[in-house]
Amino acid sequence: MGLIVQKYGGSSVADAPAIKRVAKRIAETRRAGHDVVVVVSAMGDTTDELIDLANAITPMPPAREMDILLTAGERISMSLLAMAIANLGVSAQSFTGQQAGVITDEAHGRARILEVRADRITQALADGHVAIVAGFQGVNPTTNDVTTLGRGGSDTTAVALAAALGAEVCEIYTDVDGVFSADPRIVPTARKLDRVTYEEMLDLAASGAKVLMLRCVEFARRYHVPLHVRSSFSGREGTLVTDPVEGEGQMEQPIISGVAHDPSEAKVTVVGVPDVPGTAASVFEAVAAAGVNVDMIVQNVSAAQTGLTDISFTLPSADGPKATAALQAVKEQLGYESLQYDDQIGKLSLIGAGMKSHPGVSAKLFGALRDAGINIEMISTSEIRVSVITRADQLEDAVRAVHTAFGLDAEEQEAIVYGGTGR
Amino acid sequence: MGLIVQKYGGSSVADAPAIKRVAKRIAETRRAGHDVVVVVSAMGDTTDELIDLANAITPMPPAREMDILLTAGERISMSLLAMAIANLGVSAQSFTGQQAGVITDEAHGRARILEVRADRITQALADGHVAIVAGFQGVNPTTNDVTTLGRGGSDTTAVALAAALGAEVCEIYTDVDGVFSADPRIVPTARKLDRVTYEEMLDLAASGAKVLMLRCVEFARRYHVPLHVRSSFSGREGTLVTDPVEGEGQMEQPIISGVAHDPSEAKVTVVGVPDVPGTAASVFEAVAAAGVNVDMIVQNVSAAQTGLTDISFTLPSADGPKATAALQAVKEQLGYESLQYDDQIGKLSLIGAGMKSHPGVSAKLFGALRDAGINIEMISTSEIRVSVITRADQLEDAVRAVHTAFGLDAEEQEAIVYGGTGR
Repeated sequence: MGLIVQKYGGSSVADAPAIKRVAKRIAETRRAGHDVVVVVSAMGDTTDELIDLANAITPMPPAREMDILLTAGERISMSLLAMAIANLGVSAQSFTGQQAGVITDEAHGRARILEVRADRITQALADGHVAIVAGFQGVNPTTNDVTTLGRGGSDTTAVALAAALGAEVCEIYTDVDGVFSADPRIVPTARKLDRVTYEEMLDLAASGAKVLMLRCVEFARRYHVPLHVRSSFSGREGTLVTDPVEGEGQMEQPIISGVAHDPSEAKVTVVGVPDVPGTAASVFEAVAAAGVNVDMIVQNVSAAQTGLTDISFTLPSADGPKATAALQAVKEQLGYESLQYDDQIGKLSLIGAGMKSHPGVSAKLFGALRDAGINIEMISTSEIRVSVITRADQLEDAVRAVHTAFGLDAEEQEAIVYGGTGR
Repeated sequence: MGLIVQKYGGSSVADAPAIKRVAKRIAETRRAGHDVVVVVSAMGDTTDELIDLANAITPMPPAREMDILLTAGERISMSLLAMAIANLGVSAQSFTGQQAGVITDEAHGRARILEVRADRITQALADGHVAIVAGFQGVNPTTNDVTTLGRGGSDTTAVALAAALGAEVCEIYTDVDGVFSADPRIVPTARKLDRVTYEEMLDLAASGAKVLMLRCVEFARRYHVPLHVRSSFSGREGTLVTDPVEGEGQMEQPIISGVAHDPSEAKVTVVGVPDVPGTAASVFEAVAAAGVNVDMIVQNVSAAQTGLTDISFTLPSADGPKATAALQAVKEQLGYESLQYDDQIGKLSLIGAGMKSHPGVSAKLFGALRDAGINIEMISTSEIRVSVITRADQLEDAVRAVHTAFGLDAEEQEAIVYGGTGR
């Protein structure tokens, strides 16, 4: 029986009864003979409450102090979880990111894990304890200051520990049954996927599937850590995220894994920019200098009579003000006519490792959208993904139409469970 | 301008407005040219709320995990306070007990400070920061585990840091104006004391004065750290606790500093115990083995015809069940007739460094109680203290009668401020 890393998110440890339920599952895993390392997030809304407290004090909290504040959340959940496990007669000890050896750079609020020196966790396992580790946090060894990893940090902690400890599997417990062929809140006939590759999961995550964060999947792929995304509210098998399995040929692989959607992007159009070499570089240098990551980019063919073109790109709408301010500051230098900003857009992505060898996927996608009366505003493709931008208020209809067109709808409705009803 | 250590309790940082008010005072102290180290407790009822959470999980939380849980409280208050100070344009950094070098033994929940390795605090001060340190917590260097210091821990942290850093003064901010000649809630005419010696303060603390914990005063006396007990809600000078001042003769010292009271003790009487050598030793060995500290002890003269005597002692009433259980277990061995337990008692203590050279203090005390119709059940004296046990429901009347009899009542009623009304 090998080592299993389990990660529980905030909704799985929201209150004392939830913590006790999670403890029961952990104790059962331990009693089945496994070594168990648990990574835990802060309880329910704790992190938001701490952020509210900071905002009541100052609009500009120093990043170092913000990290000290926020890491209090996991301190509470991890010690309570250790107590709950001990109460079931299974020995457990909790460890901060520092104690667990999660070494990061010095970027407070968005630190990167550099290394995991898990000696203390290894020792705790050898001593027969279940090790509970605070997610989302590490230590900058130069200053001995606590750092936080930013969004999706707890998943990343779990995968990093699983890699460092050579775990059999890293189980990501959440409030859904796994990864679905589409968001079940929008597509009631969405199917749970039994298995996806890291590449597909990366594209799903990048395209708006919330169940796993991109960086966690990147980490898992790099270190070949099998992920098992499953519900903490049921005993069902979830979705396994792995390398492509040897011997499983293309023929047996489904062409399309799923349809992802993301309503959180906005579109910026730089109108009437001179169509000369270096224009696009100047636009995106200005945006990058403002710390904004852009997603899709489209440049229209220039109108011959004017020598001007339009450049459109999408970005997280939260970054809209930063990007437009940066572009306005270089308006004279770039010589464009005007800026347009549109946050009423939605992105739909069709994802599947089998796509690249099947011509006509894009045509079928565009046809399905046309038949549903949905206009396409931008298109972007990769080897295993096609993404389109639609009006925001048509996005959900678009997801359902595409899901049906590609034959992804589940045959048995009762196979679908979404959200947590406890048991 | 030297170094000042300031300690703020939970009521001084109970919410965001309170934290901002405290930050203002700290910033003013810094701007006046002092180096400032601040020790802070958890906000308001945070610690109690965390204890409630643990109790909702298990009746027997492991001590190591309890310490991890409770130290989340200071993590929150210290980072918020650092943010609030930074927001006033004064640089501040917060430090956990571990980061501040508060080295303790391994006794979770009641750890003793062994050493303070304040290199990091010294460096922060040299870099121009105000250093905010979490009270109540330290680290066991053998295991790298966080420990808590138990009741009064934050005051002790402050005094230990003041001693290690050679601070000019350790200011203990609280919700009262200083140390009073009696509890102003019971004696409205109680006077604020401008200055008391460590010895007097020790006896006041041991006798029920809540404003400072015994161990903090012991620590301050050992390292000659001047304490200044004052209100965080007013700008008034409080009470200075120091060594006796050279050149201040007995004549100028008031005979009596104050009247303390403590309603939290209980009395155990071992009835009909054989009056032979070793009896008392056996009784108190049994009690000590149960981990109970006794306070006052009285043994009556034995009745000649029976050869039996009664031994009475007082103890914190919270320890009553433990002590009586321990004595019942050795009933046959001790050969006593019965046990009596009485938690309806109160303790009054008269304290003053000038007492030892003034005969008649005890007689005057007993006379005042007689005139007030109050019966004395036990008596205990030290060089600078006389304590008596009364009925619990007579304790407050006793305090007022003694306060008046020794001329302690303030002449100007308006000089008294008790409790926090903010400003």
